[in-house]
Amino acid sequence: MGFEEMWAALLPIGRDPATGGYHRFAWTPPELQCRAWFLDEARRRDLDVEHDANGNMFAWWLPGDGSRDDAVLTGSHLDSVPGGGAFDGPLGVVSAFAAIDCLRERGAGLRRPIGVAVFAEEEGARFGIACLGSRLLTGAIAPARARALTDGDGHTFAEVLHNAGLDPDAIGPDEDLLGRIGCFVELHVEQGRALREPVGVASSIIPHGRWRFDFRGEGDHAGTTALPDRRDPMLPFAGMVLAAREAAERNGAVATVGKVRVVPGGVNAIPSSVTAWLDARAPEDEAVRRTVAEVDEAARVAARPHRVSVDLAEESYTEVVDFHRALRDRIAATLGGPPVLPTGAGHDAGVLSARVPAAMLFVRNPTGVSHAPAESAEPADRLAGVEALTAVLDDLACG
Amino acid sequence: MGFEEMWAALLPIGRDPATGGYHRFAWTPPELQCRAWFLDEARRRDLDVEHDANGNMFAWWLPGDGSRDDAVLTGSHLDSVPGGGAFDGPLGVVSAFAAIDCLRERGAGLRRPIGVAVFAEEEGARFGIACLGSRLLTGAIAPARARALTDGDGHTFAEVLHNAGLDPDAIGPDEDLLGRIGCFVELHVEQGRALREPVGVASSIIPHGRWRFDFRGEGDHAGTTALPDRRDPMLPFAGMVLAAREAAERNGAVATVGKVRVVPGGVNAIPSSVTAWLDARAPEDEAVRRTVAEVDEAARVAARPHRVSVDLAEESYTEVVDFHRALRDRIAATLGGPPVLPTGAGHDAGVLSARVPAAMLFVRNPTGVSHAPAESAEPADRLAGVEALTAVLDDLACG
Repeated sequence: MGFEEMWAALLPIGRDPATGGYHRFAWTPPELQCRAWFLDEARRRDLDVEHDANGNMFAWWLPGDGSRDDAVLTGSHLDSVPGGGAFDGPLGVVSAFAAIDCLRERGAGLRRPIGVAVFAEEEGARFGIACLGSRLLTGAIAPARARALTDGDGHTFAEVLHNAGLDPDAIGPDEDLLGRIGCFVELHVEQGRALREPVGVASSIIPHGRWRFDFRGEGDHAGTTALPDRRDPMLPFAGMVLAAREAAERNGAVATVGKVRVVPGGVNAIPSSVTAWLDARAPEDEAVRRTVAEVDEAARVAARPHRVSVDLAEESYTEVVDFHRALRDRIAATLGGPPVLPTGAGHDAGVLSARVPAAMLFVRNPTGVSHAPAESAEPADRLAGVEALTAVLDDLACG
Repeated sequence: MGFEEMWAALLPIGRDPATGGYHRFAWTPPELQCRAWFLDEARRRDLDVEHDANGNMFAWWLPGDGSRDDAVLTGSHLDSVPGGGAFDGPLGVVSAFAAIDCLRERGAGLRRPIGVAVFAEEEGARFGIACLGSRLLTGAIAPARARALTDGDGHTFAEVLHNAGLDPDAIGPDEDLLGRIGCFVELHVEQGRALREPVGVASSIIPHGRWRFDFRGEGDHAGTTALPDRRDPMLPFAGMVLAAREAAERNGAVATVGKVRVVPGGVNAIPSSVTAWLDARAPEDEAVRRTVAEVDEAARVAARPHRVSVDLAEESYTEVVDFHRALRDRIAATLGGPPVLPTGAGHDAGVLSARVPAAMLFVRNPTGVSHAPAESAEPADRLAGVEALTAVLDDLACG
């Protein structure tokens, strides 16, 4: 199976034919189908499949001596945001298999194991915490907190793991596995407009986080409740949305409100509560913190005259990640000096970098759009990505 | 079954134990259970049950000569808004049965048939059009338009009718049934704070309507898309929410945004579209029209700098309804001069008043809250409502 055949097999899974957007949420049927595809591709290559306790999967190509240590891990994730694009995640997994095929065709001899990883719930689209699988593996989230996370239907992460045949009590850091990973190199589609060449190398992930705002007022009838009698949480929520944009502009950050829950959600009912999620990122930690603090203050000011309460909770926060300097320089040298650029997107490579040397390759995205159907990578750039990853793996693990 | 026993039997159906709010949407299991309750109560009283083609139900108490003409119809509806109160709708149906019981205990002789009506989808919580059952019966909505309405899961009204054993091709005005209704008197819980006595009589329903705003931008990644590159529909939506409140204040109207749909709805995705529903009402038609026009203009002004498109669609509009003067005066005389007041809420009685003399009795609501769990009517006031309805039916149909 060449790159394009693997790609064509994945393409229809979880795709909304009306919009072209993907809906592959952790342990839902489309995502399970993607996992089955991964296991098939691993078996087809006679790779050694390993499931960890956190729902992550690894396919290992082991050297002749059977050694499992000091592995070069690559891969990415297969889940998507709601209505996401085709490339975010799967490009890294497909490219990893394709790179292994290239190395084998060349008859490269392995010095170190090469692994293809699929990390679970990278997008956090189901349980709200991005990179949940890699966070659990590295100990970046407490198992008890993860078990209690709920999806939109009220199912806990523990229940979903149990139903997937995993033991919720066994989740958490896996020192044996971490100890076997010598480095992690994740290939990923670029998600902005900054990369002008086919392939680039990541310098850092800028600080980013998610915050939940709960506005609580009083549900009432939309027709019979006079304006001064209302405690309508929709109004300070709207003020918060506008304040987020202004605060981001002031602080050189980006801020987004992409998810809103209105209760009860009737056309003719004043809401009793509005819950909204703020995503904020900036090159500097301080700019993110200031942005969120200003949005919080603006939300409270907007809520007061409506007698609405505001609660702010930090759901996740990741400080700046500077990728491993020596690994990045070695990769850049192997690739003949490609562009080196930071990214505003979180990645499993960022989470893993707290425990193992990690690096990322980016493949150019001509639309610059991501997390949406217009996300794209040209066929020639995909092949350039596979070639780059092949060269990197060759340098790190072969010969 | 006395009033309180009937009330207690209905009370747990479709009630969310966590919030106390009701979720009784047309032809969903809780609403079907309410319908079964209605049929049981009708049979228990040996009333003659009639189903029309539009999903409305009628339980008839016929005079000795079996005449079906010039009937006095009462009743209300059993469906709810999401998270609604216990009284909006069911109070009128339970009170109707209780009033029939009182008349029979007194040995009242019938001159005209008395009917208890349950109108379908009064709240419009499932298919978006309030009073759908009475609108179809009276010809206020075209059958083809009704058939094509969809619920939140994409099921059409036609499919839902078919699955409920009704023929979607048979819906529409029923002149035979309308011709048999001499008048309609709906008892309903008052939904504001205006009624200070146990029972009042409606003068009018103020003009009201629902409008849908579609804001369309471009979905993209929340972290990697620079602010100037964004076409984020959440921002003009927020501007529209604030503009609606301001326009309502300027025009002596009320305006509410209680339902919002964000696509794709991911925390880390700039939305591609936001759909929001505006509910607007005012004593004068002109004030409603001006409010909506001003909100539309403000939404367009807010959308332009973000390169977001705005589409406005009127989903329903009801002009002022002045209830039948002679019927209202006769009822007021029977009740010894109760308060006469307008309402900001739409009702099946308002829809029916286009075809038959219609009137409404209101029962005091001490909280003034409606469409929410705090909606309320004191036991003594409920009994006063039954007594008033009994007197009105006695005057109109007996002796």
